Amino acid sequence: MKMAKLLLVFVTVAVGPAIAGYPKVTPTVGEVWPHPQMISQEDTYMIVRPSTFSFSVTGEDCDILQDALERYADIMFRFPSSKVKNSNVRRKEDNFNGYLDTVSINLMVPCEKYPHEAMDEQYEIKIDSPDQPGKGEILAQSIWGILRGLESFSQLLVPDRPSDDGSAYQVKSTQIRDFPRFSYRGFMLDTSRHYLPMRKILEHLDLMAMNKFNVFHWHLVDDQSFPYESTVFPNLSKEGAYSPLHVYSEKNISYIVEYARLRGIRVLPEFDTPGHTMSWGPGQPDLLTPCYNGGKPDGTYGPIDPTNEANYDFLKTLFTEITTRFPDHYIHLGGDEVSFSCWQSNPIISQFMKAHNITGDYNKLEEVYITKLIELVANLPTKNGYLVWQEVFDNGVQIANDTVVHVWKSEGVPAGWKKELKKVTQAGYKTILSSCWYLNYISYGVDWYKYYECDPQDFDGSEAQKQLILGGEACMWAEYVDGTNLIPRTWPRASVVAEKLWSSAAQTSSSAAASPRLEEHRCRLLDRGFRVEPLWPSFCMSDVAL
Amino acid sequence: MKMAKLLLVFVTVAVGPAIAGYPKVTPTVGEVWPHPQMISQEDTYMIVRPSTFSFSVTGEDCDILQDALERYADIMFRFPSSKVKNSNVRRKEDNFNGYLDTVSINLMVPCEKYPHEAMDEQYEIKIDSPDQPGKGEILAQSIWGILRGLESFSQLLVPDRPSDDGSAYQVKSTQIRDFPRFSYRGFMLDTSRHYLPMRKILEHLDLMAMNKFNVFHWHLVDDQSFPYESTVFPNLSKEGAYSPLHVYSEKNISYIVEYARLRGIRVLPEFDTPGHTMSWGPGQPDLLTPCYNGGKPDGTYGPIDPTNEANYDFLKTLFTEITTRFPDHYIHLGGDEVSFSCWQSNPIISQFMKAHNITGDYNKLEEVYITKLIELVANLPTKNGYLVWQEVFDNGVQIANDTVVHVWKSEGVPAGWKKELKKVTQAGYKTILSSCWYLNYISYGVDWYKYYECDPQDFDGSEAQKQLILGGEACMWAEYVDGTNLIPRTWPRASVVAEKLWSSAAQTSSSAAASPRLEEHRCRLLDRGFRVEPLWPSFCMSDVAL
Repeated sequence: MKMAKLLLVFVTVAVGPAIAGYPKVTPTVGEVWPHPQMISQEDTYMIVRPSTFSFSVTGEDCDILQDALERYADIMFRFPSSKVKNSNVRRKEDNFNGYLDTVSINLMVPCEKYPHEAMDEQYEIKIDSPDQPGKGEILAQSIWGILRGLESFSQLLVPDRPSDDGSAYQVKSTQIRDFPRFSYRGFMLDTSRHYLPMRKILEHLDLMAMNKFNVFHWHLVDDQSFPYESTVFPNLSKEGAYSPLHVYSEKNISYIVEYARLRGIRVLPEFDTPGHTMSWGPGQPDLLTPCYNGGKPDGTYGPIDPTNEANYDFLKTLFTEITTRFPDHYIHLGGDEVSFSCWQSNPIISQFMKAHNITGDYNKLEEVYITKLIELVANLPTKNGYLVWQEVFDNGVQIANDTVVHVWKSEGVPAGWKKELKKVTQAGYKTILSSCWYLNYISYGVDWYKYYECDPQDFDGSEAQKQLILGGEACMWAEYVDGTNLIPRTWPRASVVAEKLWSSAAQTSSSAAASPRLEEHRCRLLDRGFRVEPLWPSFCMSDVAL
Repeated sequence: MKMAKLLLVFVTVAVGPAIAGYPKVTPTVGEVWPHPQMISQEDTYMIVRPSTFSFSVTGEDCDILQDALERYADIMFRFPSSKVKNSNVRRKEDNFNGYLDTVSINLMVPCEKYPHEAMDEQYEIKIDSPDQPGKGEILAQSIWGILRGLESFSQLLVPDRPSDDGSAYQVKSTQIRDFPRFSYRGFMLDTSRHYLPMRKILEHLDLMAMNKFNVFHWHLVDDQSFPYESTVFPNLSKEGAYSPLHVYSEKNISYIVEYARLRGIRVLPEFDTPGHTMSWGPGQPDLLTPCYNGGKPDGTYGPIDPTNEANYDFLKTLFTEITTRFPDHYIHLGGDEVSFSCWQSNPIISQFMKAHNITGDYNKLEEVYITKLIELVANLPTKNGYLVWQEVFDNGVQIANDTVVHVWKSEGVPAGWKKELKKVTQAGYKTILSSCWYLNYISYGVDWYKYYECDPQDFDGSEAQKQLILGGEACMWAEYVDGTNLIPRTWPRASVVAEKLWSSAAQTSSSAAASPRLEEHRCRLLDRGFRVEPLWPSFCMSDVAL
């Protein structure tokens, strides 16, 4: 026992008075975000010394695990506070249960290659537990559970007073048994309104993993630009990207898919049609509907022309490429906000509608398109499942039983999304909710309470209906966001959604109770090198070095 | 003429269709922000080659000038577009008027040491002008004018096609005669709600200089923390700062003052009293008023205790140090939002008020305090002038004739600040306006139009009254801002205020007309390495490298 030799170097940290209008938040120390389903801790603790610590693989092994262990060996020990000889934690010497030099990683089932919609994310952590005193273990039935467990374990470590043998960390005697409340915990980035540089997308994926998100919904293209570099249709990005530099090459995409895979994150690409496609037009003549004015095309364009059969061949070829590049079983097909005015102006469209006995019913015309699209996607070699925005369901389009309906509208009092979830699940569809979590809608002040108060199962429906709620997704539409502000504007606000989707309803019922843990978590992410913005007047030890 | 050898390497830059809800903005090329008062340009141009270009000092010289020339030699040539072999500018060879290898810097009057409230910022630029064809000159009657001129000159340069002898820039034949509309063009940062790291303050000062702001109003301390490290009262920051790292040492402050001086920016410190002083209490016992509850002090505190004579000695000593550290002639004394409830609870205060025949009139009590404070500041060895927040005027406190009243409240329809400016100037006081420019109040969407539509002279008053408007100040209160988000949240929104304060009213009457120049300016600041956020869907060549 070398306790006597420890240097007693502390710094004072002012705890100011409560200031009118702000919560008085004292950050927790070593609590896990999102909150584990079951956790029990003792007052006793062990000491982890970076110089001697190692993980030991006692079960199955694979590339994902090796990569994760290397990553966490770095993440675990990133506390600026130890550098500045500061510690929030006073050591009670009676409670010291020795040094934790090894944590066993016990993966009980061989690794899967790709994360998927039904992946198992359960894990257990035992640190100095009654059945294994003095030892540490992370165990799971899947590699995805091990990844989630490593993240939780890394969050349990808090800096100890520096000792004469280097910096050290405390970890309490802890038992965790954890699993997600929802299987779909997504985040959407939009790379069309602004291009997002690779580095920022990777940073965002790191932050997603640190918050146990598991789906990166990539809204790749939209009206404003087409940064997806296609091999089969190179003109799409050549003519539709902001510049030849503002693209994601095949190699870029593989890199992102692999980076996400290693973190247990699915990459779900969205190619939104038939609307939101202005940028597709210049690179693919005859794809978009020409709008008419005074009996002649006026040079502007509307949604994809559903009457042109060649367009379905184009889409089949394009989606074949896309579903090959993105290994996830699902693809997001969009289908939102289709404007009918251009279709209405075009005489060829009118003729087609007459011939199909749907004159005047533009919802039906949209259905013609979506039905063909869905059929061709379902018949691709990869046999993909798909998500669609809620309009496709609202408009009565025939969709496959396993379609996931993405609810995003937020109008109405009481919240329109509650009625929508009721209808969608009544019809037997699986669904995910984004209505409450459009993080692009910024406002002044503390805005995260409202994100925390939204519960995707809080609607009038049977237990069976509620089981159809796969989860939810935070969205960051990029009209006002690019690489300059993506990270601070998104985080830690997205962390709030992450906890709602992982932890139990009971554990996430109070934003006041969550505040001290969120405050710690925000500083933790900052300590790890991410420029996540503050929640209210506060400080972190690492904010001086920004 | 080596024209024939130029490489013809261009990249396509997509100019997409107009998307509903967004302005179609094509950025200008080589226009100056804020708009110069007088500018005339020809279609002819000269070429500047970084490898051979130099400034030549033909008039007075000094350290400020040397530092600026070194700085601009770097800033001028920071265009990523030239690196990526892109150019927005097609060269018309008929208009080529040769190479500009030297620009003369003609400072006609010796340098002043510090920027000050009456500094002269006029300058002229002549590039290939009729009276000096083929030559370049920046001339001014003061070093401050030269600094403004260098910034404008740097903005005239746009990348030319890369040539076989390295990158090159075009500059049009240009004559500028420029001066500011207002002498006070300020920006306020708050380092109490969150600590701002040195590096971010310096970046902010760079951006201020690039937008011709000339006053850095530093709201150093407030309720939440006291980061100012005093030599005479070291306990103030020891007990009142967030941590021993969250402070500005004497050395830090000198560094900031010097950095600002070299950029022609005054540093105006604010020590706000008697309210907003919670963080002062722990380090200076008996300074704050103890609040009472049930006849006894309840452990909480209110504003500075105006009845305790020792407090004025403390303030005199503290302000002596402050006015020595900050060389500007002015100091901001605060005086806003004084809450009376604590004073009302305290029997010693009541006794004092009775003795002074002001029982129940807490405005009078505040006046007692402010009057003494103002007197002691005016009698410091440095004989400082001062600014106060509008409440001091509103409450009828006797203030010196040369006091600058800082108008910040924004309530009322029509805007309350218009009435306030009328009253303040009617009373003969000089004033600055911040009401329209609280940049901390963020909202979703394009929010800069409203900043551009506010004019500090747009109130009902005589010409003499309008002359009392010294200018205005953008404020970034830091409840939700620290080093993670300061730069993107502040810029380019602050640039909008900068142009309102520099350019003429006629030049700044249309936000639509300003948009293409602002779009160019935003990319320019990004090119120079600052993470300034986007205004709407758009791109800059350098945003791929973020």
